[in-house]
Amino acid sequence: MTVIAPKGFRAAGVAAGIKSTGKRDVAVVVNDGPSAAAAAVFTSNRCIANPVIWSKEAIADGSISAIALNSGGANCYTGEFGYVTSRLTAERTAELLGLAATDVLVCSTGLIGHGDEVFRGKVLAGVEAAVAELGDDEASGRNASEGILTTDSVEKLAVREGDGYVIGGMAKGAGMLAPGLATMLVVITTDADLESAQLDAALRAATAVTFDRVDSDGCMSTNDTVALLASGASGTTPDLDAFTALLTDLCAELSKKLQQDAEGSSHDITITTVGAATEDDAVAVSRAVSRSNLFKAAIFGNDPNWGRVLAAAGTTDAEFDPFAVDVSMNGVMVCKAGTPHAPVDEVDLTPRETVVLIDLHAGEASGTILSNDLTHDYVHENSAYSS
Amino acid sequence: MTVIAPKGFRAAGVAAGIKSTGKRDVAVVVNDGPSAAAAAVFTSNRCIANPVIWSKEAIADGSISAIALNSGGANCYTGEFGYVTSRLTAERTAELLGLAATDVLVCSTGLIGHGDEVFRGKVLAGVEAAVAELGDDEASGRNASEGILTTDSVEKLAVREGDGYVIGGMAKGAGMLAPGLATMLVVITTDADLESAQLDAALRAATAVTFDRVDSDGCMSTNDTVALLASGASGTTPDLDAFTALLTDLCAELSKKLQQDAEGSSHDITITTVGAATEDDAVAVSRAVSRSNLFKAAIFGNDPNWGRVLAAAGTTDAEFDPFAVDVSMNGVMVCKAGTPHAPVDEVDLTPRETVVLIDLHAGEASGTILSNDLTHDYVHENSAYSS
Repeated sequence: MTVIAPKGFRAAGVAAGIKSTGKRDVAVVVNDGPSAAAAAVFTSNRCIANPVIWSKEAIADGSISAIALNSGGANCYTGEFGYVTSRLTAERTAELLGLAATDVLVCSTGLIGHGDEVFRGKVLAGVEAAVAELGDDEASGRNASEGILTTDSVEKLAVREGDGYVIGGMAKGAGMLAPGLATMLVVITTDADLESAQLDAALRAATAVTFDRVDSDGCMSTNDTVALLASGASGTTPDLDAFTALLTDLCAELSKKLQQDAEGSSHDITITTVGAATEDDAVAVSRAVSRSNLFKAAIFGNDPNWGRVLAAAGTTDAEFDPFAVDVSMNGVMVCKAGTPHAPVDEVDLTPRETVVLIDLHAGEASGTILSNDLTHDYVHENSAYSS
Repeated sequence: MTVIAPKGFRAAGVAAGIKSTGKRDVAVVVNDGPSAAAAAVFTSNRCIANPVIWSKEAIADGSISAIALNSGGANCYTGEFGYVTSRLTAERTAELLGLAATDVLVCSTGLIGHGDEVFRGKVLAGVEAAVAELGDDEASGRNASEGILTTDSVEKLAVREGDGYVIGGMAKGAGMLAPGLATMLVVITTDADLESAQLDAALRAATAVTFDRVDSDGCMSTNDTVALLASGASGTTPDLDAFTALLTDLCAELSKKLQQDAEGSSHDITITTVGAATEDDAVAVSRAVSRSNLFKAAIFGNDPNWGRVLAAAGTTDAEFDPFAVDVSMNGVMVCKAGTPHAPVDEVDLTPRETVVLIDLHAGEASGTILSNDLTHDYVHENSAYSS
């Protein structure tokens, strides 16, 4: 039940010495076809990493047969040298597999500014080792998903079975999680037979309501990539709406797993805004709350501080009457129409799963953001990460 | 050298039992004239507190003779009852001083949702006690500045001498510090003789480049108020540009004091963006960096993680080539034209004062944001604040 659950895919993950821990840090996923149709979405950050620059060029023709991924270094802001490293990674992978370089996506994750000659050598050697170990068994798929982890504590995998086809996915990401995609790499595979344009439409629809709505710490990455490869090996061409729904469901599971493994977090906070004039309004309010450090710190302290929810909502342009808003936490309405309602000590915030419900009373639309609390462990992990 | 340093002002601060600590929590500042010209700016948060609603009405005619302030409760989201409390506070103050209620501004700070009958009683009794103690000596001014503190560790005062007139100011604010004014109350006095419209222009110009550029934790308050009262008692009508410059200088000092006392902070981070196409672009980039929790945690850990600076800059719409940017920290250029430059271990981040300089190479404009790091103490103070 890994990224190679669909027919037509092989994978491998190896330890190439990029990570000082000696853990797996290079992965390769190969689509053996018959189709090579693919789609990908990338970070909306304007400061982007070299592998993203390469991969945007490679995906332009809608055809990808392999992905080479590394953890342990983002190869971002490493100059022309770093871009050449990404190109060489694609070329080496392509050469070993009998492909063209532009059939290969490249993904990197880790510290920005890291990507010197030593790094390049290890990545290229890692790609060779990984290609030599490619397999279509469970262990090969697991090794690949291990190879892309950074501060993640668990592998993140999901599989869905459609009507005559399968979708598989693997993800990494534990920090710098914010919209326009989180700090994450996601590889999704399917043996459905769909064209690149169809995959692109399905992937954009799915990520817009899943990965784009994980906002763990408000920080947008330079390296985010979500790639979808379709082998067509099942011989099934599904209805596109049905495929999109199943893909969205799989992306939602991976999104939840990213939230649950967010660096240092002690609460998974689901912030849902209802009664909004538009879905954009609902998402804007939920996102503003998810980015309030004061709110996030209060949840860490099991403090149902609804005033911080309203103070954050009030920074948005969403349509609502600030004195008509209700706020509930874990099922207890602590603020009704802008005044204190149920006593805050009725709210139990000790469970990890925390639900904040905001009713704007301005319409029928709703939107949810998945976030986390602000904890001592978050501060610790992110003050010590690169030192 | 307090808020009553200019001629024509009296002040007092008393302990009215609103704070559980027994510290001073009510202050009154009176302008005895001859002029009662005034101006004020308020939070741009749409969710605003009852005293802000009252004060916006009171200042509408440009004339204010007294300010009643309390700490220990924000009287925000306390419903119609809370609005009446603010009105009664103005009425009681006015009655005792022989003024009209609309000559009195009301300011509150503390926990949102706090403002019941007990709170109202203490505020009104506090106002009576404070009016009885009004004085124009140093101690009276200090007592007033103590009366508005919440989690602040020090009083924040500043005085400037102009050509024949004086400006004095007091401020409070230690958290929820972000643009559109920080979580702060600021009272500025002057014995210059200027009209309300002139004061308003000077105050808006001064706050736009001072308080509005303190962004300690990205959280915008519901209660922020900066009021400027002019007694005209010096008999001097200064040149408006000179007055604005002096007022801006005083506001800059108070802004720096807010930054230096930010909750739980261990670094004061001055983030300056130069080489921008416009000042708005420069401020947008500096502000984006100031709101990156990953960047702020890195500074706490004395880690010159310039990748997080670029990742934050890349989320803005500012005009620049992402691969032309230089980043310096404490005088060491760690990134030049988007590539690693000086070794990061040359950067010494142990001093509290930290300077981040970003050169966009896109123009001549610049802009600075004053921020703080993200620390264990910040998380601790803000997870335990209301419990």
